[in-house]
Amino acid sequence: MSFDVSSLKYDQAGLIPAIVQDAASGVVLMMAYMNREAVAKTLATGETWFWSRSRQEFWHKGETSGNVQKVREILYDCDRDSLVVKVEQKGAACHEGYFTCFHYRVEQDGNVTVVGEKMFDPDQVYGRKQRG
Amino acid sequence: MSFDVSSLKYDQAGLIPAIVQDAASGVVLMMAYMNREAVAKTLATGETWFWSRSRQEFWHKGETSGNVQKVREILYDCDRDSLVVKVEQKGAACHEGYFTCFHYRVEQDGNVTVVGEKMFDPDQVYGRKQRG
Repeated sequence: MSFDVSSLKYDQAGLIPAIVQDAASGVVLMMAYMNREAVAKTLATGETWFWSRSRQEFWHKGETSGNVQKVREILYDCDRDSLVVKVEQKGAACHEGYFTCFHYRVEQDGNVTVVGEKMFDPDQVYGRKQRG
Repeated sequence: MSFDVSSLKYDQAGLIPAIVQDAASGVVLMMAYMNREAVAKTLATGETWFWSRSRQEFWHKGETSGNVQKVREILYDCDRDSLVVKVEQKGAACHEGYFTCFHYRVEQDGNVTVVGEKMFDPDQVYGRKQRG
């Protein structure tokens, strides 16, 4: 069967959640939303494009920081309403400077630990801007 | 810092997306939604609980199929609006009988390939019911 961007199930806002995973390590890097056009752009360019819900605009991941994500594989689920995008992450995915956005771990004792190390200083990369 | 279920950011429907990942292999198994109480139930029981948007009820993964998910680790992201739940998956996660719900791969040539093999026959496990 051939893939049709329109065959995915988008929510009422026209969005589908995309789970971005580091292809080499399997680490889940981030989750963001794509609309139909962002899925098409991602397929066409081989880099991740999202729809920013807060800014209401396309967001080419890495445009500001240089930390682009080269797409290695795209999977969708049985409900056709979410994506896994396996990528080669340049630098760090998180705007806080960590490799993954998921760097807060809930411990058994109810405490939260920050896992991983900062790979860059957000202030130096973004200035006041906090995304990209 | 200590973890407070209420400190997560839930959407307008009171939900937060939870990415469920196989702890051993790193395979992303499924994405589903939790509300505040489902997060609390997951923490309390050590097995995954979700909120079913279609049925509008709690959904204890594996209750019908026996394919429960034992929680090994819970992480949240920099925006506090999504979770990664690392689990030990009993059997298969997908109601279609596959290990992961993400078993449709978009190939470079625009075709879609089913990856992985069926681990069970959904009709035998669920009868007419299609979840659990």
